[in-house]
Amino acid sequence: MTRLIEYADASPEVRAVYDDIKAARGVADVNNFWKALAVHPPTLARTWESLRRVMAPGALDPLVKEMLYLAASAAAGCAYCVASHTAAARAKGMTEEMHGELLAILGMAAETNRLAEALRVPVDPAFE
Amino acid sequence: MTRLIEYADASPEVRAVYDDIKAARGVADVNNFWKALAVHPPTLARTWESLRRVMAPGALDPLVKEMLYLAASAAAGCAYCVASHTAAARAKGMTEEMHGELLAILGMAAETNRLAEALRVPVDPAFE
Amino acid sequence: MTRLIEYADASPEVRAVYDDIKAARGVADVNNFWKALAVHPPTLARTWESLRRVMAPGALDPLVKEMLYLAASAAAGCAYCVASHTAAARAKGMTEEMHGELLAILGMAAETNRLAEALRVPVDPAFE
Amino acid sequence: MTRLIEYADASPEVRAVYDDIKAARGVADVNNFWKALAVHPPTLARTWESLRRVMAPGALDPLVKEMLYLAASAAAGCAYCVASHTAAARAKGMTEEMHGELLAILGMAAETNRLAEALRVPVDPAFE
Amino acid sequence: MTRLIEYADASPEVRAVYDDIKAARGVADVNNFWKALAVHPPTLARTWESLRRVMAPGALDPLVKEMLYLAASAAAGCAYCVASHTAAARAKGMTEEMHGELLAILGMAAETNRLAEALRVPVDPAFE
Amino acid sequence: MTRLIEYADASPEVRAVYDDIKAARGVADVNNFWKALAVHPPTLARTWESLRRVMAPGALDPLVKEMLYLAASAAAGCAYCVASHTAAARAKGMTEEMHGELLAILGMAAETNRLAEALRVPVDPAFE
Repeated sequence: MTRLIEYADASPEVRAVYDDIKAARGVADVNNFWKALAVHPPTLARTWESLRRVMAPGALDPLVKEMLYLAASAAAGCAYCVASHTAAARAKGMTEEMHGELLAILGMAAETNRLAEALRVPVDPAFE
Repeated sequence: MTRLIEYADASPEVRAVYDDIKAARGVADVNNFWKALAVHPPTLARTWESLRRVMAPGALDPLVKEMLYLAASAAAGCAYCVASHTAAARAKGMTEEMHGELLAILGMAAETNRLAEALRVPVDPAFE
Repeated sequence: MTRLIEYADASPEVRAVYDDIKAARGVADVNNFWKALAVHPPTLARTWESLRRVMAPGALDPLVKEMLYLAASAAAGCAYCVASHTAAARAKGMTEEMHGELLAILGMAAETNRLAEALRVPVDPAFE
Repeated sequence: MTRLIEYADASPEVRAVYDDIKAARGVADVNNFWKALAVHPPTLARTWESLRRVMAPGALDPLVKEMLYLAASAAAGCAYCVASHTAAARAKGMTEEMHGELLAILGMAAETNRLAEALRVPVDPAFE
Repeated sequence: MTRLIEYADASPEVRAVYDDIKAARGVADVNNFWKALAVHPPTLARTWESLRRVMAPGALDPLVKEMLYLAASAAAGCAYCVASHTAAARAKGMTEEMHGELLAILGMAAETNRLAEALRVPVDPAFE
Repeated sequence: MTRLIEYADASPEVRAVYDDIKAARGVADVNNFWKALAVHPPTLARTWESLRRVMAPGALDPLVKEMLYLAASAAAGCAYCVASHTAAARAKGMTEEMHGELLAILGMAAETNRLAEALRVPVDPAFE
């Protein structure tokens, strides 16, 4: 069973990260991902710090960022990540129709990725 | 060496698909992917037909669709696909800054996907 | 540059494996895969021994075995393996039409694999 | 929890696909994969249409096609797909012995794929 | 449900492998992996024989070997393998701190692997 | 062609990271990975900062850390990363024999990972 470190049992170092996540996201508790990562406090702190910077407002809007995260996670086959980022994308405004189109793209990309590799297609000079 | 079927050497069945791709995209020639896929005309025709439907205008705008395709292809590690969809996303308006943010998300997703799997994190009830 | 050990430069231990591969396959020289693997003679010997046993005649015919090897290698995205097992399958009788159908299955499997994972589909009781 | 759309709750568009799958396969109900995919009716319809064409009788016999699908799905690590295509291959005549040989090939392919990539083996000129 | 072959129900051929595993590891029963693999006795025997040789004492110490096995298994996303090799590494002396550092490396490798592929970075001449 | 940003053409922000990498590693120039990543300076800076912390001396010795990085990169199939981390591991003392054993483990892990997934082996209670 994966060990999950709850706030009540966490060290001050871990609690500080949990507090920061909760404040940044406006949530009452952190997700299991963070509770599992807390077994190694430096990795917990570094990962949260990186994630916050990567997902901060920028040239891409927050919903697009979240859908890109979901697409990459689904392509990597991570079940936990698909569950968490599907929920996050919905919270940021992804409709059923948008989700359906994202799924369709994921499927087509998988198919054409596989075919391109199975045929060992040389890169077009125009792409370079 | 991957066999690429040029228009001049293609059967009428294959030429019809090439013509359709060229018309839909307003290009003078099709990419190597299609020329390689033409070794099996039914797969060429079916793949193009599916791709056109998936990438048609919908709830997501064309640039977002293209970036999702790129994210999924990069997460799957397909070099040809990364080259072709990076070019396509640029043609649809992806700036250097947007590309940089997409890369950052790809990297973070890879890291957190791996950590979630290596820790076998149980899915939060709230995601269900 | 990957170091490839040619027969002339090989130790007696490595030459014995090369001789065995050449005799079993009726070829004048071994493929680069074996020349690269020869950097670690125990792995060279063990891998060849395993491969010979796995690919020996059995309940499945040799062409089907080779196509299964190709399908698994393509799904894993190994470019060298796709090249070598496509050549091997052709040598054992895979026609253009059979190759085309195998490619179509590879593409569809990639698409439905991805969709099943992105939707986290629960296994049907009937499959158990 | 993945949302599964049962026949009784499905739109006429979705029911038409379910009816087509049930008739083509001679089954009383569709698998969970289709019930999950029904959240996006265009993807449901397109995927079924493609799958039917890809798996139709051709140069390869139906059992070989199903085993190739299983090999590709197992190489991609899709648990649902392994379960469904193992069941389908058995229904088409895959014996325990054939399954065992398929498993052995999957394992060997995984090992040699990994070694070829870890050694970055250059493609033999003879394969081109 | 995966069929697991218990010792009491195993053939003499399978029991001989189980006995060998139990003696080599000093355990009372074999893991589920072997009980599942026993559906194909030749693959059970060959896999155990290979594994024993690969994990035998050598230039690398047993704990390092086990952690490398865990790292490779986690990078491949195999949940069962992560569970079994995490347990095995702990039994060989992996501390919480060592596990935490291994996790951090896994995460960083995933991130930089993905970025290197998404940018299609050319190999430095100095690496060849 | 991947755009590589050389020191002479780099912004002060990018040069600062390059200088830091060169000082930390005692090298005259940074690898192509960093020159490619420099297209997005925030990702360049963040990735280097993370990598330095992850690879700093800790409970695991530097050579073991580098071999774990190599194992994870090879399992993920990243050719550039295999090339760079093989070179780095050699520079830190990995002998031919150690490399051979690492390769053998990579191959066996790939094989048993695939078999565990293809058989959908349930996790042993003892691992939890």
